[in-house]
Amino acid sequence: MLLSLLAAAAAASLSPAEIVAQAPEAAWRDIAPQDLLVMTLADGGTVTIQLAPGWAPVHIANIAAFADARFWDGAGINRVQDNYVVQWGDATRAAPAAVQPKPPAEYQRPLAGTGFRALGFPDAYARQTGHAGGWPVATDGKGNGWLVHCYGMVGVGRDMSPDTGTGAELYAVIGHAPRHLDRNVALVGRVVDGIERLSALPRGDGALGVYADAARHVPIARIRRGDPDAGAPAWQYLSTDSPAFATYARARANRHDAFFNLPAGGADVCNVPVPLRRKPAG
Amino acid sequence: MLLSLLAAAAAASLSPAEIVAQAPEAAWRDIAPQDLLVMTLADGGTVTIQLAPGWAPVHIANIAAFADARFWDGAGINRVQDNYVVQWGDATRAAPAAVQPKPPAEYQRPLAGTGFRALGFPDAYARQTGHAGGWPVATDGKGNGWLVHCYGMVGVGRDMSPDTGTGAELYAVIGHAPRHLDRNVALVGRVVDGIERLSALPRGDGALGVYADAARHVPIARIRRGDPDAGAPAWQYLSTDSPAFATYARARANRHDAFFNLPAGGADVCNVPVPLRRKPAG
Repeated sequence: MLLSLLAAAAAASLSPAEIVAQAPEAAWRDIAPQDLLVMTLADGGTVTIQLAPGWAPVHIANIAAFADARFWDGAGINRVQDNYVVQWGDATRAAPAAVQPKPPAEYQRPLAGTGFRALGFPDAYARQTGHAGGWPVATDGKGNGWLVHCYGMVGVGRDMSPDTGTGAELYAVIGHAPRHLDRNVALVGRVVDGIERLSALPRGDGALGVYADAARHVPIARIRRGDPDAGAPAWQYLSTDSPAFATYARARANRHDAFFNLPAGGADVCNVPVPLRRKPAG
Repeated sequence: MLLSLLAAAAAASLSPAEIVAQAPEAAWRDIAPQDLLVMTLADGGTVTIQLAPGWAPVHIANIAAFADARFWDGAGINRVQDNYVVQWGDATRAAPAAVQPKPPAEYQRPLAGTGFRALGFPDAYARQTGHAGGWPVATDGKGNGWLVHCYGMVGVGRDMSPDTGTGAELYAVIGHAPRHLDRNVALVGRVVDGIERLSALPRGDGALGVYADAARHVPIARIRRGDPDAGAPAWQYLSTDSPAFATYARARANRHDAFFNLPAGGADVCNVPVPLRRKPAG
């Protein structure tokens, strides 16, 4: 008991990054290879996405079908809207036969069974926010949970309500969390590596950040499901059930590292990003 | 009365952008030319910043002194950290004599007299959030208010606490609002035009997004206080006291335009950005 108090006192002065660096190996969880989607741009740069099949299974089955059919090979990034989203793919071409043309609105699911842990701070959009199974999640207090539009989250482009989009076009958030999109679009995952290959692209000059001239589209060589045996790196996330994550979240809300004068005493869910890392060799 | 009810009903289906477009001329406020700071990059692109002298007067007097002394001419953008900040200037050179070397910690001020209007939604960081005199503001419920680190806000780089920075280096937020910086750094304004010339820059490869090689710094031709007579455009903001702003804020929190299935019923202060425009000719 004394030791854990001392450990807590020591942790109080660590930065969030230091807490993550000191997390025990047991707190890290492998991301399943089939849950990785790797976009290789024509210039050779890659963007790695972790899919969230527990939250949008039909949309994600569609995305797997698009990838397996090489549907996106030669497509492009067609929209870069500042402080909002980068979007890619092609909703104008016929989808492969395995794609469900009208997926259900997978905008929320029962919270039960997700392992949700509340952060405990007030939120403008939801009854509670927190994390579940490595994802940022919000809840209405009535047993429903949904993924949150934090920076780097990936969703399915769609047309006007109530269409849900097939997954032929995907977007990633590159600005302040557009939480008004929560429960209005299917979120399917997050960028785990290479976000800067999207967020630093030139902004589109057309309405909604679309590149008015298709010649400006950023060409995509291919998008494949990840397979570490095929050379894609393996990734891990810090378990959001772990004591290390709880300590990290407290530190994000109460910064005591040297730069800070005044800890906030709170944090919004998008300012408590789930730590990610390449799986150590061995 | 009937007409205003009808107008309210009609407004309920308008998008936030439509509400702003229909705002009466009387709802727009001029930004004083001396409150504009125009950064011209070596490639000719410009970034226009509105300063907030009501919130950090000593820091802003310093910034004016740096600009008037042409201190930043030939300096560079030295840091681009994804989902965080872009930083520029030069804290290594001697400041002009007119610069106060140790400004006070202008991190908050009395809320009285600012015209604060609460948004009315819960917040993880503050007792209340809202707007005052065209700025995003938070309060502790004890009479103190402070500017909020929303996307595009500009602050003063500093070293470790309790140093406050002279203003020789400034930063702009280019990611999810880093609200943990609120009341830990002096905010001095916001980017009103040209944010994409900062947010789309290549990310820095060193620690904290610093460009490890100074040769990668993005060169700044000059930074001057704005003067429309000298060719800088005049800008206006939508008065945050106006009925039009209140209607706009409600619409941001309750999206009923065609794309949306489910209005959020709330919005965080950084998702209710103050509308800005070039002052119409005439």
